Amino acid sequence: MAGEATRGPRLTLVLGGARSGKSAYAESLVQAEPAPWIYVATAQGYDDEMRARIADHRARRPAGWETRDAPRDLVGVLGATPPGRPVLVDCLTLWLSNALLDEADLAAKTGALVAACTRHPGPLVLVSNEVGFGIVPDNALARRFRDEAGRLHQRLAAIADRVVLVVAGLPLVVKGE
Amino acid sequence: MAGEATRGPRLTLVLGGARSGKSAYAESLVQAEPAPWIYVATAQGYDDEMRARIADHRARRPAGWETRDAPRDLVGVLGATPPGRPVLVDCLTLWLSNALLDEADLAAKTGALVAACTRHPGPLVLVSNEVGFGIVPDNALARRFRDEAGRLHQRLAAIADRVVLVVAGLPLVVKGE
Amino acid sequence: MAGEATRGPRLTLVLGGARSGKSAYAESLVQAEPAPWIYVATAQGYDDEMRARIADHRARRPAGWETRDAPRDLVGVLGATPPGRPVLVDCLTLWLSNALLDEADLAAKTGALVAACTRHPGPLVLVSNEVGFGIVPDNALARRFRDEAGRLHQRLAAIADRVVLVVAGLPLVVKGE
Repeated sequence: MAGEATRGPRLTLVLGGARSGKSAYAESLVQAEPAPWIYVATAQGYDDEMRARIADHRARRPAGWETRDAPRDLVGVLGATPPGRPVLVDCLTLWLSNALLDEADLAAKTGALVAACTRHPGPLVLVSNEVGFGIVPDNALARRFRDEAGRLHQRLAAIADRVVLVVAGLPLVVKGE
Repeated sequence: MAGEATRGPRLTLVLGGARSGKSAYAESLVQAEPAPWIYVATAQGYDDEMRARIADHRARRPAGWETRDAPRDLVGVLGATPPGRPVLVDCLTLWLSNALLDEADLAAKTGALVAACTRHPGPLVLVSNEVGFGIVPDNALARRFRDEAGRLHQRLAAIADRVVLVVAGLPLVVKGE
Repeated sequence: MAGEATRGPRLTLVLGGARSGKSAYAESLVQAEPAPWIYVATAQGYDDEMRARIADHRARRPAGWETRDAPRDLVGVLGATPPGRPVLVDCLTLWLSNALLDEADLAAKTGALVAACTRHPGPLVLVSNEVGFGIVPDNALARRFRDEAGRLHQRLAAIADRVVLVVAGLPLVVKGE
């Protein structure tokens, strides 16, 4: 049974910088669970640079992954995953960026996401960029994004069983085992 | 007696990114000591964005806090705190920014601050933004600020009993317990 | 004999932010080995700010250091160090920046560097800036640099015996002892 074979915690938050290896690390966590695995992709290929990144990430993933696109309706996609199936969301940063640009009620959206992660049976691994360790950006939108990302990470870290900061491909455990 | 109930170290440096939860974490450290507590605020409400941040921080603090403003004379304010009274400075980043913009002798000012923290009886908790983990800023003033902040953090970390990096609201202990 | 006195690991990667104290920390690792030590400098003094930084770093180093300049031919300089002699490379960031600006085959250059570090007898300590924890830069070249730095750090961390993130002058061990 899937339940017996499950070894990891219910909810893991994987933070990391740009090109820190956080996606590969998060994939390895999910792949330690029994296949099939669900890859929830928040990226949209709206320019060549982004399309190249998506293709690069996709090429790295072995068979056993089902991909679901959720650039906006992440709550709906998470609610529709079969119970017990390991799920990877890569990444919250792009979802949050889309939510911010849509100018909808961001507090409602992030609240709904936190609630969806709280009630998801897991194993659920969330990947997000840590973006707050630089100089204050000149740009007001970048400042707002940085604030919202920080707030969302705090809320998710509070309900996560495990929080990891990835540095140069290596995990620095901040919470849990 | 306040001295007997004091559990924390004399000097703690709390570093963290933007919206990392470093202020709330630092407040929890101080609030673990017996009240009343002294909140040394370095922020100045010179625009709406900053005034909103100040109000947000102030609203979170429970009764038991006395606030003292020290956008510039942090050394004087620290010297005037009653011995044994727990003190939180939030944050060094804004004080350093003011000191840099004043174009006064920055080396003398930071040296005086390090000396004041060295002789303060504590418990003293200092909050500051870690700003050095991004790309080199285009702006020369931002580069200088980043250098000065890094230097100040190194000097304070060397004399601190405990240094913590806050990530998503969670403490990563760099020095001490 | 030098071999007997050697205590540190063969390959150490020291990451840190701007003015984090990573160079001083890395120097202390090398100086724990028997002198003489080789300092491989990748900086070039092409403007006053950079010349001041180079002079500042050089003034901190005691006697016992031999300096070799390697703004571009880092692979050649590493290959020519006498076996058993402790070597510090400070820093990979500037070497990578030069390699990127030269518009040569970057994948070949970074691959050759990883190979040179793999076969170097050590003790070898590599210093590099962690630059990926901020907001996405506006500038395409900065984005590319950030990506390449992240990829290089992952590859070197994978072959290193010890990886350390320096925060406020203090080591946070990510891999090894």
